[in-house]
This record gives sequence, C-alpha cells and structure tokens, in this order.
Amino acid sequence: MDYQRVFSQAIDRLHAEGRYRVFIDILRNKGMFPNARCFHGHNGPKPITVWCSNDYLAMGQHPKVIAAMEEALHDVGAGSGGTRNIGGNTHYHIDLEAELADLHGKQGALLFTSGYVSNEATLSTLAKVLPGCIIFSDELNHASMIAGIRNSGCEKHVFRHNDLAHLEELLASVPAEAPKLIAFESVYSMDGDVAPIAAICDLADRYNALTYLDEVHAVGMYGAHGGGISERDGVAERITIIEGTLGKAFGVMGGYIAADRTVIDVIRSYAPGFIFTTSLSPVLVAGVLASVRHLKQSSAEREGQQAAATMLKRLFAEAGLPVMPSTTHIVPLRVGDPVKAKTISDILLAEYGVYVQPINYPTVPRGTERLRFTPGPSHSVEMMEELTRALVEIWDRLDLRLAA
Amino acid sequence: MDYQRVFSQAIDRLHAEGRYRVFIDILRNKGMFPNARCFHGHNGPKPITVWCSNDYLAMGQHPKVIAAMEEALHDVGAGSGGTRNIGGNTHYHIDLEAELADLHGKQGALLFTSGYVSNEATLSTLAKVLPGCIIFSDELNHASMIAGIRNSGCEKHVFRHNDLAHLEELLASVPAEAPKLIAFESVYSMDGDVAPIAAICDLADRYNALTYLDEVHAVGMYGAHGGGISERDGVAERITIIEGTLGKAFGVMGGYIAADRTVIDVIRSYAPGFIFTTSLSPVLVAGVLASVRHLKQSSAEREGQQAAATMLKRLFAEAGLPVMPSTTHIVPLRVGDPVKAKTISDILLAEYGVYVQPINYPTVPRGTERLRFTPGPSHSVEMMEELTRALVEIWDRLDLRLAA
Ligand SMILES: Cc1ncc(COP(=O)(O)O)c(C=O)c1O
Ligand SMILES: Cc1ncc(COP(=O)(O)O)c(C=O)c1O
Repeated sequence: MDYQRVFSQAIDRLHAEGRYRVFIDILRNKGMFPNARCFHGHNGPKPITVWCSNDYLAMGQHPKVIAAMEEALHDVGAGSGGTRNIGGNTHYHIDLEAELADLHGKQGALLFTSGYVSNEATLSTLAKVLPGCIIFSDELNHASMIAGIRNSGCEKHVFRHNDLAHLEELLASVPAEAPKLIAFESVYSMDGDVAPIAAICDLADRYNALTYLDEVHAVGMYGAHGGGISERDGVAERITIIEGTLGKAFGVMGGYIAADRTVIDVIRSYAPGFIFTTSLSPVLVAGVLASVRHLKQSSAEREGQQAAATMLKRLFAEAGLPVMPSTTHIVPLRVGDPVKAKTISDILLAEYGVYVQPINYPTVPRGTERLRFTPGPSHSVEMMEELTRALVEIWDRLDLRLAA
Repeated sequence: MDYQRVFSQAIDRLHAEGRYRVFIDILRNKGMFPNARCFHGHNGPKPITVWCSNDYLAMGQHPKVIAAMEEALHDVGAGSGGTRNIGGNTHYHIDLEAELADLHGKQGALLFTSGYVSNEATLSTLAKVLPGCIIFSDELNHASMIAGIRNSGCEKHVFRHNDLAHLEELLASVPAEAPKLIAFESVYSMDGDVAPIAAICDLADRYNALTYLDEVHAVGMYGAHGGGISERDGVAERITIIEGTLGKAFGVMGGYIAADRTVIDVIRSYAPGFIFTTSLSPVLVAGVLASVRHLKQSSAEREGQQAAATMLKRLFAEAGLPVMPSTTHIVPLRVGDPVKAKTISDILLAEYGVYVQPINYPTVPRGTERLRFTPGPSHSVEMMEELTRALVEIWDRLDLRLAA
C-alpha cells in the first residue's frame, strides 16, 4: 500500500478537472466594507472591492456588533473554556437562544458552532429518536444537510428541486404510519430562488410529516424582523424545525435551530455534535446578540440590500449580461464553463480590483458555472456601474455573447 | 405516528436514568480566572471558583490574546463572511496554519471550526481517498473520532484502551495489503492517562499503517513548545496526522490538523466539513495566533499547571480522598455513583462556591462516575486547601469512605 501515491492521485484528479482550489488571501477593512485588501501574488496588500461576501448586510462591521464583542472580550475573555454541559455555558448563550426562539416564534432555540454542524447534528440525531424515519430531501439541499441525512442512516427520497408534485408522489409511496421528515431550504444560495414553503407545509400536514427548513440565506434578510422567508410568508409556526446561521447576514459565526421545547430538549440531550464540543466563544455570542437585536427592529439594511440587488440585476440585464432569474438578493451571472468562469474572476481581481469567486462543479451542476454576486447596502451605485462596465469589457475581450 | 409522544419519551428516559442535564449558567471574570459568576437559581450572580474549565492555562484571559483579538476586531470586523474558498480566507488563517504546522514540525496544517469537526471531517474523508481502509480505534476515543470513523463507512476494529498486544493482534488479523489507520489520543481527558505513542508507531511501521493522534488535551501543555505529548516524547514526525483544538489550552475556539503537504491538500480539497462552512472568525484566529506564539516560547504556564496538579493530587491523597491514578494535569476523584456525584457537585456549588461538573455515563463507564478537576497556574494553594477541606466535609456528611 503506497499511501503517498494514492493521496497524490486524488489531488491530480482535481488538477486534471480544473477543480483544484487556490484560496484568495484577503483582509477586509472594518468600517469600509466592501473595501478590502488582497495579498494575492505576494506583492503586499492591494485594495479590492468584495462582491461575493455572505456578510450580506455588513453586520460584521456594525458598530453595535463590534462594541458588544469588545465588551464581552473584556468582561469574560476569549473562549468559553468548555462544552455547554461542562463549564462552557454562559449567560450570553442563554440570552441568545431566547432571542432566536423569539425571532422565529418558537419555544426554544439551540446554538451550534456553525450552521454546518447544526444541520449535520440535528438531522442525523432525529433518526435516533424516530426509528424508521424516512427523509424527503430537495435535490439542491446544502452539503451539510446531505451529510446529516446520510449520517442518520435513514431511508431517503430526493425530490426534484421545489417540485411539489414529485414530493407528493414520494410521500404517497411510503407507508402512511412511518415517521417522515421533509428537509429543504428557503432561499437556495446559488440560484437565488425560493421554496414554496406554505405548499410544502400543506403536503406535510396531509402526510403527517415533520418539516425541517434551512433559512441560512434568509435569516436577518427577510420578514419584518429578519425571521427569514418563513416570517415573510407567515408560515414559521407551521415548520417543525427552522435552522439558521450566525455567520452570514448576522455577520459573525455559529449556527442554530429553533423549534418547540421538546424537540430542542431532544437534540440538546442526544446530538454528539452539540454535546461533545467546546461551546461558541462568548465573544461571538455577544456580537450575534447585538446583531440579531438590531436587525429585529431595523429594516434599513434589508431595504438597502433589496434596492442594491434590484439595481444590479437591472444594470446587468440592460448591458446584456446573462443574469440568471433570481427572485432574491443573490445575483448569479451564468458563464457555463469552469475555465472561463475562473478567467473572468482572475481578470476582475487583477485588473479591476473586483473580488468575485467563480462557482464551479460540484457546488453547481456542470454547464451552469457562474459568477455569484451578493450586492448589499454598502455597495454604491458607482461601484455597480463600474462593475457592469468591467464585465462588459471582459465579456467582449473573451468573445462571450451579450444579449442584444 | 405521534411525534410529540416519541420525543417526550426520549426525554423521560434520561430523567429516569438520572442523566438529564441542566446547564449551569456562568460568566467568567476576565483577569480573575478561576473566579467567575454563577446565575444558578436566578438570584443574581454569585461569585464562584471554577475547577473544571478546559481553558487549562487561562490563556483565554491572557493580555496578549485579548489584545490580539481586539486589534483584529477593529481591523477586519466580527466574522469572515464566507467559506475558506469563497471570501472567507484571510491572512490570519494562513499565518495560523503556518504557525501550527511549525509547532508540530509538519509541512502543513488546516483549520476547522472546532476540534470536533476536525476529527469528524478528517477521519470520515480519509476513507474516500483510501478505498478499503481499515480503522483501528482505541476503545476510549472521543465521540468526535467515533463519529468520523462511523461516517467514513470503513471497517473498524476497536482495541482495548492503550493495549498494544490487542492492537497488534487486530492489525495482524487483516490483509497485509489493506490500507490501515490507527486512531488514538495522547492524553485521555477523563482519566488523565497517556498513550504509548512510540510503541504504537512501532506497530504502525511493522504493519504499514497510518497514524492519527488526537492531542486535544495536550497541545499547549506538553513539550518544550507546547507541541503536545508527541513533542515531549520526540515522536511527532512518526505520526501521520496530529489533531488539536484551539478551545482548550489555547483558550479560544476552533480545531486543526497538522500533517504533510499532500495529506493536508487532500483533506482541504475533499472534506465537506471543511469546505462547506463559514471559516473561523478572524477575531478568534488572531487570538489563537497570539496564544500559540506565546506558549511556544513560554513554559511558565505549563510549569504552573504541573505544579498545581501535583499539589492537588497530594492534598487529595493526604486527605484520603479517592483520587484516580492520573499521570497528567487532570485530577479525577472517583465517586462511583451518578446521583452521589451530582449531589457532591451541587453542595460544592451551593455551599462552597466551587464549580466542578459531575462526569457521568455515557462520558465515562457506569460505576466510574467522578468529579474531574483541572487545576491550572491560576489556582492558588489556598484555593486547593479550601477545596480539599470542603470535599472532606462533604465526604463525611454523605457517609462516603475516606482512605485511612
Ligand atoms: C444552505 C446552507 N446551509 C448551511 C450552511 C452552513 O452554514 P455555516 O457557514 O454557518 O456553517 C451554508 C453555508 O455555509 C449554506 O449555504
Ligand atoms: C479528546 C477530544 N477530542 C476532540 C474534542 C473536540 O474539540 P472541540 O471542543 O474543539 O470541538 C474534545 C472535547 O471537546 C476532546 O475531549
């Protein structure tokens, strides 16, 4: 057994497919987002504009968030020093869980170290308490949900993306008495489309299924208080478990679920991914508390983001750029080729100081490679116009097609 | 299917077994560790002394760590805003990976959001690149390693704790040509004993197996630079993958692996738990950088910890308390009954302002329930004497046996 050879071959395969990833080395400038510095090429930092951050509302730079983190840092220190059960449970954690439960109108909430872990731990643990559970999963669900479902060992049925007829067909195909769980997202982050939540809940009612909704790309950004698409659509109470991240619109790091008291207690008591790990640093938790509280009572960031997204889509469309039909804040531009997507991204960074990561397989299906822009309240009209001009120039240079 | 009933029964089982966990609500006082405030009982904060923190060296309160985090907070903001590949790779991450690789004398290192995720993601991903891999796992391995091994889908053989003969017997029982991986820990955190690393490496050489070592309870604390037991024993270069946490002796939060360049590249490129998640907040990373750098050149904290552990073991032994035979900084006191362990812990908190969590099944085997003390450089002799007196009084009150 030649281990080195096997490992090298695994890497060679990625190079051969053009999928080997090189991380871009950036530092954001607090208070000046989306401005940042880039260390690419080792010529010292160079100023860039970030167009692909998931700190969607720039809350990671908000004075209230920074102040809360600084205060916690000086009050209690850097880390929690333990798991939630052994030494690592703080007043901050308890307060944030109450705040998040309230945000979604649920009885309880539970913090995890990331959104990834909240999905993996919750979905894989439900199987332990619901023997014979059958999971129905949207085909575009995120890798963390897929990991949780696979690790649950449950029977799984994948339904075509947002396809209610297909979901119903699958629900009808299994025994009526079997425990069932429908797992899906609200905003799909690579296309920017939205799930028909109410209609999925109707099916869940009809077939007595639990529902699990990933609102990672919606919390903070939709609904009057930032409760996500389920708040906007008035259907939060129909969802069994709402899952979210603290690392995107809330601007910090961590993940959570919100649900009724018993479900929270079950996950809290049985999920290894929750139990056997150092709890979130109280510094992060304090920052998130400030962020969630701010976005509950301020809609300015949400409105700014929607205005920016509408504007950017319009500018792209008017310039004939192949903007994809997103109904949310996510603005994907279809390229359809992994090498070209990478080339455009490279030119933007090197010549225009614009940072947008190409999105290739396996994150999106082959042939749908794209650039994914996430305009926010801090991107100015001038920045958007500059970006559009740059893209048109590059499209032209690379002989790509612009619409008439 | 009555979901509510199934969930409630799952919780009832825990109550019936006396294993239902109630989190203790504490806030540490920065600069005054191990002093903290406890909100238990909702009578407002009450001062306590923490005896069960895994912030072993109080680095979570170290002025250098706090200053570095404050600087990063003001320089770049709260969160990273993206995954390592999409917008969330910063100069801090790159610097810390270089620092950790150097700490263990390896070519590379890779950061994860937690030690739990580093174990789960790395172990489960190795299987993808080493088809037919057989994993040999110490029976006392941590839940996160067990999760990774289970999720890898690999054939697994569990060897008796630190039992070389049993490990060899198992290694010899599988085909010589099969890829093999031995997964174990250096310091076992509930007993405080240490693995025979060199001897396990000898077996790995003989049977051409890779080695995976969890140094979570040793990094920062053993070796001249805090490289763990593998540094202390001079065997780091014989280990394929060394795994550690940033949330215990380093005092912050996060996890990592260190290994040769190709292995790092494989995990970086293939592990979903690394790829599809928001990267560690740069604020945390900056704090860890300061912590690792400090502990590389300062042995005062390590010496203080060892002195405190030696002293506490001596005081317990002299008082006739049933201290277990740990050879490290961990000081477990055997109780042997879950209800009594909880009672002692409750009395300590309520009457003596001492916080130490009882450790019950499934964290330790039934019948070995214990209190686990983690004295550090900030616990004074007076605190230890007070603690010993308190324990003797409680032992007496509960009619527990003291040695002659
Ligand atoms: C849909 C979805 N769910 C979950 C996650 C994971 O959240 P986190 O970044 O907090 O781990 C992500 C992205 O990272 C995501 O896009
Ligand atoms: C042996 C061992 N490995 C891994 C972990 C997980 O590390 P982290 O707390 O950083 O998730 C722990 C404890 O939490 C542990 O005790």
